[in-house]
Amino acid sequence: METTKLTALEARIAKATEKLLIPIEKMEEEYAKLHDIAVAKGTETWEDRKAAQKPQCSFGEDGVCCRICSMGPCRITKKASRGICGCDVHGIVARNYLRFSAGGTAAHSDHGREIMHTFSQTAADKDYQVKDVNKLLKIAKDWEVETEGRDIYDIAHEVAEIGLLEYGKVHGTQRFIKWASKDRQEAWAREGIEPRAIDREIAECLHRTHMGCSSEPIALMRQALRSALSDGWGGSMMGTEFSDVMFGTPMPRDTEANLGVLDADCVNIIVHGHDPSLSEMIVKYAEDPELVALAKEVGAKGINIAGVCCTSNEVTMRHGIPMAGNFLQQENCILTGAVEAVIVDIQCIFPALGPLSQCFHTKFITTSEIARIPYATHIPFSVETAGANAKAIVREAVENFKNRDAESVYIPDMKRKATVGYSCEAIIKQLDTVCNSFVDELGTYQPLVDCITSGVIRGAVAVVGCNNPKIRTDFGHIELMKKMLKNDCVIVLSGCSAQAAAKAGLMSKEAKDICGAGMKRVCELADIPPVLHMGSCVDISRMMRLVCDVATQWGVDVPQMPVVGCAPEWMSEKAVSIGNYVVATGIDTFLGVVPYVGGSDIVSNFLQDGIKEWVGASFTFETDMDKLGDLMLENIEAKRLALGI
Amino acid sequence: METTKLTALEARIAKATEKLLIPIEKMEEEYAKLHDIAVAKGTETWEDRKAAQKPQCSFGEDGVCCRICSMGPCRITKKASRGICGCDVHGIVARNYLRFSAGGTAAHSDHGREIMHTFSQTAADKDYQVKDVNKLLKIAKDWEVETEGRDIYDIAHEVAEIGLLEYGKVHGTQRFIKWASKDRQEAWAREGIEPRAIDREIAECLHRTHMGCSSEPIALMRQALRSALSDGWGGSMMGTEFSDVMFGTPMPRDTEANLGVLDADCVNIIVHGHDPSLSEMIVKYAEDPELVALAKEVGAKGINIAGVCCTSNEVTMRHGIPMAGNFLQQENCILTGAVEAVIVDIQCIFPALGPLSQCFHTKFITTSEIARIPYATHIPFSVETAGANAKAIVREAVENFKNRDAESVYIPDMKRKATVGYSCEAIIKQLDTVCNSFVDELGTYQPLVDCITSGVIRGAVAVVGCNNPKIRTDFGHIELMKKMLKNDCVIVLSGCSAQAAAKAGLMSKEAKDICGAGMKRVCELADIPPVLHMGSCVDISRMMRLVCDVATQWGVDVPQMPVVGCAPEWMSEKAVSIGNYVVATGIDTFLGVVPYVGGSDIVSNFLQDGIKEWVGASFTFETDMDKLGDLMLENIEAKRLALGI
Repeated sequence: METTKLTALEARIAKATEKLLIPIEKMEEEYAKLHDIAVAKGTETWEDRKAAQKPQCSFGEDGVCCRICSMGPCRITKKASRGICGCDVHGIVARNYLRFSAGGTAAHSDHGREIMHTFSQTAADKDYQVKDVNKLLKIAKDWEVETEGRDIYDIAHEVAEIGLLEYGKVHGTQRFIKWASKDRQEAWAREGIEPRAIDREIAECLHRTHMGCSSEPIALMRQALRSALSDGWGGSMMGTEFSDVMFGTPMPRDTEANLGVLDADCVNIIVHGHDPSLSEMIVKYAEDPELVALAKEVGAKGINIAGVCCTSNEVTMRHGIPMAGNFLQQENCILTGAVEAVIVDIQCIFPALGPLSQCFHTKFITTSEIARIPYATHIPFSVETAGANAKAIVREAVENFKNRDAESVYIPDMKRKATVGYSCEAIIKQLDTVCNSFVDELGTYQPLVDCITSGVIRGAVAVVGCNNPKIRTDFGHIELMKKMLKNDCVIVLSGCSAQAAAKAGLMSKEAKDICGAGMKRVCELADIPPVLHMGSCVDISRMMRLVCDVATQWGVDVPQMPVVGCAPEWMSEKAVSIGNYVVATGIDTFLGVVPYVGGSDIVSNFLQDGIKEWVGASFTFETDMDKLGDLMLENIEAKRLALGI
Repeated sequence: METTKLTALEARIAKATEKLLIPIEKMEEEYAKLHDIAVAKGTETWEDRKAAQKPQCSFGEDGVCCRICSMGPCRITKKASRGICGCDVHGIVARNYLRFSAGGTAAHSDHGREIMHTFSQTAADKDYQVKDVNKLLKIAKDWEVETEGRDIYDIAHEVAEIGLLEYGKVHGTQRFIKWASKDRQEAWAREGIEPRAIDREIAECLHRTHMGCSSEPIALMRQALRSALSDGWGGSMMGTEFSDVMFGTPMPRDTEANLGVLDADCVNIIVHGHDPSLSEMIVKYAEDPELVALAKEVGAKGINIAGVCCTSNEVTMRHGIPMAGNFLQQENCILTGAVEAVIVDIQCIFPALGPLSQCFHTKFITTSEIARIPYATHIPFSVETAGANAKAIVREAVENFKNRDAESVYIPDMKRKATVGYSCEAIIKQLDTVCNSFVDELGTYQPLVDCITSGVIRGAVAVVGCNNPKIRTDFGHIELMKKMLKNDCVIVLSGCSAQAAAKAGLMSKEAKDICGAGMKRVCELADIPPVLHMGSCVDISRMMRLVCDVATQWGVDVPQMPVVGCAPEWMSEKAVSIGNYVVATGIDTFLGVVPYVGGSDIVSNFLQDGIKEWVGASFTFETDMDKLGDLMLENIEAKRLALGI
């Protein structure tokens, strides 16, 4: 590289990058070493399975294959422009898309339901308590639950029943949509996409796409938005808000990330999945004196918990539990040979962990009836007996330490510091620190609005979503973040994207040095890392509230703001549900993996353009990460121009 | 054929068959003529599209293709035994099967929900009334709704709200499962498959099958049964029972079937779909003096309504409206050139009707947001404005008569008489006619039990389900029925299977002559046709009640009875949901089309065998119709033997 040609900014960033970040190449080297271990054991990892799946079916990839009835399967080809029932390619693609999205809505929302169930079991003397009383009282007030002079658990149980009924109530729309900005509420009412009971929206997705129901693509898209809104402003939001009520609303704290957080001297337990009801208890019992003593008895220094995927995000946000890795690192954890147990709840758990764990001493422990996986040790976890279950599970892990083959442990020596915990409440609190309490109103997003309108920050980017073997692992996340930071955009993160950032080192406060001058200054003044970890994938609901509240504070509509969403490496149905509700919330959303809609120009164009007429925002599909970044920056600058800022 | 070799029975049956039934070959000849019309118009029908789809994808057919996340599509092949996530073939097949079933549960149950919504709008002075007061009061009592001294519409509205909440209630299981026999209730409780809120079961199907949740096939099968039970003993049963309450519980009445029911001199209106809320109003306004006068004004003799698919079954059961045809005849109706309007509600409507109707004067009128189809005239139908909507729709059809090209009308000269209307209540009433009122208790199924235990009837067969181009149209239905009747089995029918029978002539009382001696005698004594039309596909709930009540009356468990279910030509997701709840209700079920499970011996064997351990019944897959019939007869005789009868 000819550094002489770099600008001062570029030089500073290049230097900081070299000093602070773990390059992707270094991570890939380590992953390759772990893969060698798999090969040596005669087993396989996702890299091998990906290779075996090549070439992938182009009919499926384009969304033009229909298996909705048993007259089929039908495929749209040059010689067959319609399925046997007469459905054309647009109907087939749209039906598949709606069902894909519905799968995501169901997964997120059922997670939210489980949280509400846990919440319904809170009691002062049981496993789960109310920690954030203020948040509960705020929701109770919004939901018109009497709070005056009542025991907090009486209030909690009444609120829990109301929340659970949001899934199935006969009349009315989701309660949380009132938290959206006025323009959003008006758009949803106008377009007939105000979400009703969550489960009803899901059932209707399946009904509309049943053989012989809808084949008109745009009508199907409307239901995609309505059902997805029942996720983002319903199920997911309940998941987030009531997790906060029970486990505490996250506040900034320090932790570490990447495989190096595993400790060769400790019992290592990986928590993996999504639902914090389990992982909160695992974290608690990992500190249980009896179990810690047991760990020492079996020769370990202690019990070390680390996380993968969104369960990791939940416990890092609230307890600073280190993040071992994101979605595509789940096998790597086992391959280190240093993990006594991978304890999982629901979603994004590779079935591969079953057979893989059989090649190591690692216990792969499933706990939920929702996620039953072959070759796992199944220890049912129930909210009603949570403490006892969790203790038994941790004990199982600790006792497994003796089976570890210390000789064959290989923990990559790589990890980075990270500061996490940026709930909306935490962000506002942080913003208060830059206010002048004599002249400014505290507790608002005004300082953020000021930074954006002044141009110190050009815009905000939410980088979210999974990993996907179709994209070089974490490359999309990290390269886009670097690009946006250089261009003075603030970044909020959730899910595997957040872990990508943390693993690389972007989530440390020192990473301010890889930002443009404006963003660097903001990081220093507000004492924040340049990328803010907002939580798990259900916590994208936090971002929805953030954006709507900033719009209201600012006095503009959401689609006017220089704010974009981006999921460069998404993979799950949940991500499509998220994309739909994020766009419906007025935020232009950029995807680095194209959904299965390529076969229909009507559907593809609608998502990338026509949808704007309804909600003021749209998707962009672009698999070239550099171009994707350019498009996001263009979008942000165009919006600034339109606002005259 | 060497008739000399026939037994006397065979000779009698052969003679009656020739006299009474329209042979499939004759129907095929007529369909071919209609197909020629399509060709002449430069358009196509399902036969052409079926040909164009060949060969169909074997991955899809075997259920081994996964598109549940965007890492895929993945396919299990010799070189790839797992998807990228590590899911094996059994997990993939089972997930696909569960989702397929969930689609059916959603469709049926959402139909039931719409019926409950219609029911909630009943009033003495509005479009919908309570017709079967006794049935309503029975349900109200079961549901612990106060009835004493209350206005029937007050009761109706309270019951409607409770019914609507069955879709989304937070606690408890489906109310109607208490109507099942004791052995069934015990089995469902023991196996953890008592269905909770319907929509919740559907959402959970999607969640369990989401990427990284369940891949353990048997766990997925359990949810397939539980969710399907929420259809059969929940959504579908509500659809049936409350349609009866509003539109009257069917009683025997005469009608006709096959394409010859179209009348060249009349305005012909086809009602097609499933939800009687619309068709009841269409039937009503087809008799509206103003519209009849308008029909005469435009040159027609009157307005002739005929039906296709289950909407047809609904209105034939309650009004004797003739059945033009079943699923694969929907295009044929338009091809006659004699149909002014095809008015559709939801489900099983070929998207092909859109472009096809453009080649004729026929108006293809969609009415529901659930079923939006390109190239249709969309006239929204709302329960709140039902009468006005229906009148406008019928007017649209009548005014279209002037556009008919009388020269090019071709109505096949084939139809048969049929006696329909065999609800459970009608069957019991009919059985009363063979009782001796001095010694027998009236109002029970005892005469039926007596016929079966004595061996006059060997057993009962429910023949249900759709048409599927994979099976020679109606061949499976008709040949199996003939075989079972010859072997002295009584047959109950619903859906397209019922129409197959009616079209051929099997549903006339004269068809007793194609039965064995015992069944012939029963037909004569009870004055019934040998095949009993019990209604639409949601009305399989009637069969569930029938079987459970007979079992209770008899004092045996459902799986002990010589009763089998059969769907020789099924095609839709609904059929798989039905199959699952029928088997869960203890009835061995025989399928002539193999579900997409061939790729997994675990799933395939479980459905055909292992499932018995849970519910005492299982599936049989056999595409050879003759063998399928033999297997059913063997099953029945084996059960008789076990019972010692």
